[in-house]
Amino acid sequence: MRALLGSGGIRTEDRKAMYLKEMRLHFGDVKQVLFIPWALDDHDQYVTLMKERGLDAGYELVGIHTFEDPLAAIANADAISIGGGNTFRLTWELQRTGAMAAIRSRVLDDDIPYMGVSAGTNVACPTMQTTNDMPIARPESFATLGLVQFQVNAHYFEGATWIRTSDNTFTEHYGETRDDRLREYHEVNDLPVVGLREGSYLRCIDDSVELVGSGARVFICGQPPLDIEPGVNLASLPW
Amino acid sequence: MRALLGSGGIRTEDRKAMYLKEMRLHFGDVKQVLFIPWALDDHDQYVTLMKERGLDAGYELVGIHTFEDPLAAIANADAISIGGGNTFRLTWELQRTGAMAAIRSRVLDDDIPYMGVSAGTNVACPTMQTTNDMPIARPESFATLGLVQFQVNAHYFEGATWIRTSDNTFTEHYGETRDDRLREYHEVNDLPVVGLREGSYLRCIDDSVELVGSGARVFICGQPPLDIEPGVNLASLPW
Repeated sequence: MRALLGSGGIRTEDRKAMYLKEMRLHFGDVKQVLFIPWALDDHDQYVTLMKERGLDAGYELVGIHTFEDPLAAIANADAISIGGGNTFRLTWELQRTGAMAAIRSRVLDDDIPYMGVSAGTNVACPTMQTTNDMPIARPESFATLGLVQFQVNAHYFEGATWIRTSDNTFTEHYGETRDDRLREYHEVNDLPVVGLREGSYLRCIDDSVELVGSGARVFICGQPPLDIEPGVNLASLPW
Repeated sequence: MRALLGSGGIRTEDRKAMYLKEMRLHFGDVKQVLFIPWALDDHDQYVTLMKERGLDAGYELVGIHTFEDPLAAIANADAISIGGGNTFRLTWELQRTGAMAAIRSRVLDDDIPYMGVSAGTNVACPTMQTTNDMPIARPESFATLGLVQFQVNAHYFEGATWIRTSDNTFTEHYGETRDDRLREYHEVNDLPVVGLREGSYLRCIDDSVELVGSGARVFICGQPPLDIEPGVNLASLPW
């Protein structure tokens, strides 16, 4: 099993350089990557934007929406990438089309490489229940690909949300912090969660889970959160 | 129909004073308020905290979890209040127990006053699909009380999220803004949404919807967002 799971937030040159390096390392000499743009509304525009911003990393990125039969496209793919957007909409479409089971089988049984960013990372987990997204659509189930046996909270950050006011000062917002939300997640569920900071990646190769980029915070049910440095293999954690 | 819908974020003295004023104006000379603490995990602690912080406004706040039969408690209530927390967990419990239909009937048919804060405001809407919360539980349906015919996005704020770093500077977070999220909501749904800033309220009396506190931003499907000043009756909007 080969999955590269990114947190997203790729909007600085440094972060883009790391994204390209990790993507090339992961996909290697594959020529074509099947890209699933279902987390956003405008699929053509999504693929165009990925190419224009150079986020194709030199691979031939082909949108799954351009195929008449999405399941055949998955069956023939050498590599699959799912981009960010709304995780509820993405999950709904993956389930509705049967793509969920098809992708899972290609990655787990046929060992083709999978890459996810943000929403694409959420759906690589057993469920999409640690998403930050708004429930704009209702999937049949919260169960997702389950390529890995832990959850990821993408775009993780520590502490409060701050808002910049019109006079350029900052004011604290009183909504729940990510740590609050993940504590609540563990009041009802028990899968471990990796709080993955923007610009970071998890290189998941079989049972190995290497953290690349920034430090991550790992939440294990019933235990205090653990701060993990880049380079650490999360497989060594007591989860 | 009488519903007072608050956004939450009641953590400054000014905001608390406004909360108490609005709550007293709304509930009037009712003695006992049935409080529904299901959005949080620890129900006893929630009710205790409400009293300790003076957020009972002098009313006798009784937690629904202290009754053997929650539906009987709803049938006998003179007023109902639902507090904040996780909207998915709250909705799940309201549906599971049958409280959703029971509360709806008491407020719409018997005209008892309803107050919601944050998650309690979300469930007063036709659906809970404009919540900011994490899907830690999966309700049978996203449909909620439907006391009003629009959606509310509680804790609304404009622009990007900023994070305070360890050296006390601020750095921009690249996740979606609320406006991004609500634009995506309208790619799939068409109910109007009131972006209700922290510390603000909607006084909903029959078809009248008066904004109290800060300005709100209203999102109508297919139209540019509207900025609304406090005191305006939203019933006059073209929705």
